[in-house]
Order: sequence, then structure tokens, then C-alpha cells
Amino acid sequence: MARYAYVNGRYVDHHDASVHIEDRGYQLADGVYEVVGVRDGKLIDEGPHLDRLDRSLKELRIGWPISRDALRFVIRELMRRNRLHDGLVYMQVTRGVARRDHAFPTTPVKPSLVLTTKGTKHLDADTGPGIAVKSMPDIRWERCDIKTVGLLANVLAKQAARESGAYEAWLVDADGYVTEGASTNAWIVTQNDELVTRHTDNGILAGITRATLKSIADALQLKLIERPFTIAEAKRAKEAFITSATSFVTPVVKIDGEAVGAGTPGPVAHRLREEYVRFADAGELVA
Amino acid sequence: MARYAYVNGRYVDHHDASVHIEDRGYQLADGVYEVVGVRDGKLIDEGPHLDRLDRSLKELRIGWPISRDALRFVIRELMRRNRLHDGLVYMQVTRGVARRDHAFPTTPVKPSLVLTTKGTKHLDADTGPGIAVKSMPDIRWERCDIKTVGLLANVLAKQAARESGAYEAWLVDADGYVTEGASTNAWIVTQNDELVTRHTDNGILAGITRATLKSIADALQLKLIERPFTIAEAKRAKEAFITSATSFVTPVVKIDGEAVGAGTPGPVAHRLREEYVRFADAGELVA
Repeated sequence: MARYAYVNGRYVDHHDASVHIEDRGYQLADGVYEVVGVRDGKLIDEGPHLDRLDRSLKELRIGWPISRDALRFVIRELMRRNRLHDGLVYMQVTRGVARRDHAFPTTPVKPSLVLTTKGTKHLDADTGPGIAVKSMPDIRWERCDIKTVGLLANVLAKQAARESGAYEAWLVDADGYVTEGASTNAWIVTQNDELVTRHTDNGILAGITRATLKSIADALQLKLIERPFTIAEAKRAKEAFITSATSFVTPVVKIDGEAVGAGTPGPVAHRLREEYVRFADAGELVA
Repeated sequence: MARYAYVNGRYVDHHDASVHIEDRGYQLADGVYEVVGVRDGKLIDEGPHLDRLDRSLKELRIGWPISRDALRFVIRELMRRNRLHDGLVYMQVTRGVARRDHAFPTTPVKPSLVLTTKGTKHLDADTGPGIAVKSMPDIRWERCDIKTVGLLANVLAKQAARESGAYEAWLVDADGYVTEGASTNAWIVTQNDELVTRHTDNGILAGITRATLKSIADALQLKLIERPFTIAEAKRAKEAFITSATSFVTPVVKIDGEAVGAGTPGPVAHRLREEYVRFADAGELVA
């Protein structure tokens, strides 16, 4: 566990890092967050992550707790103090501390800002053996485009997946279409070699890694279609994979116990991960 | 603000009451709560509230942080320290502090327990002038039967209601039926003098005050039907009202700007509130 956390203006020992019990993040899930990947000491897609944080805050009408530039400084200072080389920076903003009431506080409240870091191993272009996913009904609220801390539905889906021996849950809407994973975006490669991932709207989070992958797919002249797909279609696909800030591109080799394609990581996922790692190393698209 | 809070085994100054930033309640809304009304120093429906807390915990597979008897003691001790005569006791249980991951912690974690109290004026049998409600789409998740701290959708609905000059939001499902309020249950009295409130299932919280009101209605030989109703039906109703642990029975006199009935509190809501206050005073049904 990293030594320091940042809490409302102070770098504190992680062990003692705390927020008030009436922080609206604790009592009402009235807050948002971002997770930014770190590779060789460099932030991956920091700009787009802060843009998305800005959008989440605007949707909830929460102000920035500190300026964007100040946040960029805090991120770097916390990384430095924690000697973070590879891993992630987690940042959370809530509406702040106020006497409990569902409605927004009627007197001005300073939003709360918390940052932590987590070291992980250095990810490389090797996709590894791939993962299994389990399909689950998507029972979440209707504003999954906002990256809020109200993650209980995701928690329950992820837990059910883990208990079934799968790594991730693929959430399926009332019409039978996959929306996204519990904490990742979902992709398939069809038998026609089309890359398919669900379009963005209020039903899913617009993943930053997802957006970067779109640019990479474009640079590689892969055919990309943004539309919903079913679990049945995914099982018949050549390949399937997930994307996120911390899993990069990770092949899905099994869905609900059935092998996808050959049941091993496929060439498209491998190629995309390779280019994503290249992008993360360079800080820009070089495909 | 009450002087003391209870946090994980200690009675602490409310000003300093804090939880760790990696409490899963803060990062994942992985927790539940209860609000119990207090009248003349007596808890209203404590047993049913603790039963519901038990159910919420079981649904999420969170253990009791302390025994039920110990919690009953803590509630009373906090009330004593805060000299609480009229108001409410708020209690929140989360899965506890763990390194952030969507799935449940794989090593045992002690659930967190936080209690606060809030003093309010002594409510009486007078219903007051009644309130206005605003209808809003119900965009919440599909397990509203669990009383979780994942309340952001409720927060946004309540805020929209307040900004429109209404006190409460009535949430309307995809089929056009009222599910419940943002923090209350919804009732109408039809032109046929039938008391109507939505049946309980995963779509609404099984209100404790709602359940007590059912018993009271039965004792008063009122005809009660548990079924969904629309906003249009509510506008045509003789009366409408909300129930909750803190609002008891409060008449709704306006829905989306249109008067309900005569636009003033009606006799059924008045009678039910009178009996509810009698119940709260006696600690049992005396109707």
C-alpha cells in the first residue's frame, strides 16, 4: 500500500487518511472519481481523464475542489512521494461535508478531494492467457455515463463473476445487449473482422482507453462499428476483449463457460494491446 | 448539530467524526443505512427498522458490525449523550475498509458502523399546510428494496423538486407509474375512498412507516389497495400524501403545479396522521 494519500489539501499518512462521516460521498454517493494509469512514471491519457472528471462534475453541478492545474500538481507530487513508477492514481471528488439531506446543501460547501496511488507490475504487450467473463443483468441506474462512486451494482456483478470463476461481469440490458463490464468496456471482433463495441450514451461510461483504442483501430485501418451486441453474438465472435485504464486491452477467452473463437487470445487483441502499450510509452499515437 | 457521533466503537465529537478514505462506503457506496424517528425520547418502530437493516445487510452479505443488542445499546447511549428528545437516529453500516477493488475483500474485513442523531421539533397531529411534489423519471437501479447509501439518483430528483418549488419528487417508472418519493412512500385516496399505495417489490423500499400505516388503515377499516398508480390518477384523487420515519403522514396538496382535491390537506391524511402520532406516543397500535 502506498505510504501517502492526499486529502483536502494535505498529504497524509495513508493509514490515517480520513474524511468526515457526513461527507456526502459517504452518506449519499454524491461524488465522482477517475482512475489514471501510470507507466514508467508517466500518466496515460491524463488530459482526457481530467476532461471526463470535469464533465462528471458538471453533470452533478459539483465545483472543482481545486483548479485543474493544481490537481495536476497534486497528482505529480503524490506520485513523487509514493515513488509511483507503474500503477494508477485514484482521485475522488464529492460534493463535500454537510448536514445530511438529499437535496444539495443550501449554503456553499467546499467539495472534498481525495487522491491515492497504487503500484502494480509493469504491464507489457503480452496479453497473457486472457480472462473469462460472466453475463449478468445490468441493473444499474440510467446515468452510467457519469463516473460516480455509486458503484454497488458494479460491486455485486463483479463479485458474482469472481465467484463463478470469471474475472469480469458483462452487463446485459433489458433488450439482451451487452452494455459494458463492471469496470471495463466490452469489445468483440466479428467473423467479418469488424471491431464492435457499444456506442456511448447514458447507458455506459465513455471509457478513455476505449476512445484511445478507437484512434488506434483507425490508424491500423481496422473496421470499427459502434453498436450493441448480444452475448450470443459475442460467443460466436472471432475474438472478444475488454479495455480499461488498468487492464489496457485484455482478451476474453471464455463467456459463461463457452470458449470464444479458439479459446485463446486472438491476433487483433494482441495487435491492439501492442499499439496501446506503444501509445502509453510514447504519450501519443505512433501507429 | 448534535455533539456526539458514534464511529466504530467510540463516541466521538461530531466535529472530528471520520472514517477512512478507503471505507467501501465512500468509494463504492457499498453500505446500507436506517433512519429511526424519536419522539419524546422514545424510538418509533425500532424493531422493524433493525429487521430491515438486517435484511439489507443480508442482501449485500455484509455482517452485523456489532450484535443487535449492542446496537440497541449504542442507539440509546448516543441519544442520552446528545440529550435527544425529538428527532432521529441515523445509522450506517458499510462493508468496511479495504484496498479498493469492486469485488468483496478476499480477507475478512470488519464492517464499519456510524451513528448520528439529529434533533427536530416535536411533530404533532396537525398535518400543516401540506406539500407540493414534482414528478420525475425514476432512473434508479433495480434493487431499490435495499436501503443502500447509493442515493445519488434520489439526490438529483430531490434537488430538481426543490428547485421547482416542490418539497418532494415522485418517481415515475418506464410504464408511467409512481414508484415512490425520493425519500418517502407515496399514497393517494381515490374518489372511491380507496387508499392506494404501490405494492412492494424490488422497485421500492418497504417503508416502515408505510407498514405501520397499513396496520392503522386496517384498524380504521379503511379499504387499502396495494397497486401502482399514475400521476394522472393522483391528480384526480381526493387526497394524496407521503409517509416516512421523519415526515410521518404529510399531505400532498399539489402535483406538478396542479391542486389535488381541494388543494388543502384532506380528512383521511389528517386521521391517519393523528393515529400515527397516537401510535408513536404509545409505542403500539391503539386505533
